[in-house]
Amino acid sequence: MYKLIELESGVCAADGFFANGVSAGLKPNGAKDMAFIYSDVPCQIAATFTTNKMAAAPIKHFKVKGEFETNFVLINSKNANAMTGRAGVVDIDEILATLPSCVKSPVMSSTGVIGVRLPKEKLIAGAKLFNLTQREPHAAAQAIMTTDSFSKEKAYRVELEDGSSFHIGAMAKGAGMINPAMATMLCFITTDAKVSRKEMQAILDEKVEVTFNAASVDGDTSTNDTVMLLSNAKSNAFHKEAFAEALEKIMKFLAREMVRDGEGATKLVTYNVTGAKDDREAEVVAKALSNSLLVKTALYGEDPNWGRIASTVGASGAEATEELLTISFDDVCVYKRGELFFDAAMEAKAAEVMKKDSFTISCDLGIADGSFEAYGCDLGYKYVEINADYRT
Amino acid sequence: MYKLIELESGVCAADGFFANGVSAGLKPNGAKDMAFIYSDVPCQIAATFTTNKMAAAPIKHFKVKGEFETNFVLINSKNANAMTGRAGVVDIDEILATLPSCVKSPVMSSTGVIGVRLPKEKLIAGAKLFNLTQREPHAAAQAIMTTDSFSKEKAYRVELEDGSSFHIGAMAKGAGMINPAMATMLCFITTDAKVSRKEMQAILDEKVEVTFNAASVDGDTSTNDTVMLLSNAKSNAFHKEAFAEALEKIMKFLAREMVRDGEGATKLVTYNVTGAKDDREAEVVAKALSNSLLVKTALYGEDPNWGRIASTVGASGAEATEELLTISFDDVCVYKRGELFFDAAMEAKAAEVMKKDSFTISCDLGIADGSFEAYGCDLGYKYVEINADYRT
Repeated sequence: MYKLIELESGVCAADGFFANGVSAGLKPNGAKDMAFIYSDVPCQIAATFTTNKMAAAPIKHFKVKGEFETNFVLINSKNANAMTGRAGVVDIDEILATLPSCVKSPVMSSTGVIGVRLPKEKLIAGAKLFNLTQREPHAAAQAIMTTDSFSKEKAYRVELEDGSSFHIGAMAKGAGMINPAMATMLCFITTDAKVSRKEMQAILDEKVEVTFNAASVDGDTSTNDTVMLLSNAKSNAFHKEAFAEALEKIMKFLAREMVRDGEGATKLVTYNVTGAKDDREAEVVAKALSNSLLVKTALYGEDPNWGRIASTVGASGAEATEELLTISFDDVCVYKRGELFFDAAMEAKAAEVMKKDSFTISCDLGIADGSFEAYGCDLGYKYVEINADYRT
Repeated sequence: MYKLIELESGVCAADGFFANGVSAGLKPNGAKDMAFIYSDVPCQIAATFTTNKMAAAPIKHFKVKGEFETNFVLINSKNANAMTGRAGVVDIDEILATLPSCVKSPVMSSTGVIGVRLPKEKLIAGAKLFNLTQREPHAAAQAIMTTDSFSKEKAYRVELEDGSSFHIGAMAKGAGMINPAMATMLCFITTDAKVSRKEMQAILDEKVEVTFNAASVDGDTSTNDTVMLLSNAKSNAFHKEAFAEALEKIMKFLAREMVRDGEGATKLVTYNVTGAKDDREAEVVAKALSNSLLVKTALYGEDPNWGRIASTVGASGAEATEELLTISFDDVCVYKRGELFFDAAMEAKAAEVMKKDSFTISCDLGIADGSFEAYGCDLGYKYVEINADYRT
């Protein structure tokens, strides 16, 4: 038995972790654009990265080091340091070399525009503003935002039966280039649980599939996607089941918040697919739905156009027939196994559900027991506005 | 040697073909919404249909008949007769049974809203307005439009060396639920060439891959996609190479017109991918580009954001590295094999290209000889407007 208690302290919830955000002048008007996470003892690292073949310089910089411990993560927004080649990796080394001597094997993470070299002098000057004794998790979470409209944090204390406890805390950012095929965007998780690197990585890999990898804003996969989990083992406590549950709760919360804050999004929709041939086919259908432009625009229009949902199920490639398919908006069933009963009254009821900020679209394929839950948002004018002129 | 001469007569270009469009009251304000194609002798049929598992009733109705000849195609817009189950197929039989006795084994094709039974009485009354001696190809092409803003037609006379000749003419419609994974939307092609059903089908299958299947508006695959080729052999002439060339020209023209007229589209972009591991990988990259929301919104914003193109190439799954990639907008090269040289002057030049109605984005992956050309459009406010409230 164990208990999860929610905390407000984000990446500083775990013992020995410090964080803050500062302004290095990358964003206009003095907005925070650089953050650090520091642990006063070295940390084990588990991480998952983008599968994009154009992986950004910070990811190359991390991977080349093999297995190592660190006590410091430097994060900047506004510039992704992607498509910058060998020079982009050298830039990271030069920036990290200017950090104070208490920092051991620091890693860097970036998000923002692709194809522009880092403004190195600004970042070096910005890093000089860091005070490693500060615990300002909200400022750190704000500094890593790009087109996000709010910051995303979550933390738990896990209390075990024997009176011991450990903590897990996290911060993440969205809000565009978010695609369900892999670990998505930037997420940093800190813990003082006493867990081995190998076990931590295994739990992270498993939980990423049903959280960040189930979330989609626009079906585009970034060059910089990173989920990083740091453990300094300071609590001396661990409980695998409790750790996994807390981690999944945190990651699912952040993944859903990312989608809720998707560029221009006004609705968070859960796609609950059941009755598929197997879980893999359910996943294919759920992700096809969360990425369909016609479904996303119908959501925005609050139009219960279930025909588009049926068409997307049919186009997904998964086994499906209209005779076995059932579609519901929350508890309003709009199509059931070949029966057409969608009249004006039912349309009004379904439209009522769609007015909510958050609801579930269920598709039962009626074939076998495969199931998957994916998270998506609508697509409206604001998405076009944000993305038609992102760089200016 | 042979010569292709362009004609204005659409699906009536070939000898013995008649067509017209009428208003059956499905569209408001007396707009044409029903069309026919009639041949005064029976026709061989070649056809490709959607791979959507929720294939519409007209497609089921066609497929159940096996191999047959016909002299009549009835087409309606505004209602797709999809997700209507067995009843939808029976509706077709009942409508077709009311046609005049000169009509043999008629087929039906529909496009429009999914999940609503056909207004049978309106369609039966509409069919009574058909005059099978009329040749009004433009009216027919207009009657099959849904959200299209212009009709799409193309026809050639093919003159052979021996003085004989034959004709191929076509009409098509777009403009949403258009996806590159298969034969797309409605296209009807008529010919008086003396060609066997089997040979015609083989040529059609081959040409569909590089024309309609290379076009994308929104990555959504309709329940009703149909390309149908009817031959009445009245010319007694045939030349395989000439027939294939004319067919490809017609289908490529119509596919590109469909994309140009994509819902809300303001630009037609050709994605020319070369240097891929093989043609299949080039196709994967070209289609990933034509479907990327971030690329499409950058096109709309006329923003030469080549980083999004690089990221999409990297996310496509195809073999690629930044050191070998080259990206150009028409003849303006913006990124070359790891070199960053994109400055303000170059950005201005690339932005100039993007102001055009039609241009080419080239990606040379620098790996081997695989190549593919895909056709896509931008995504702007108008797409959202059209699709957020399509049914009202």
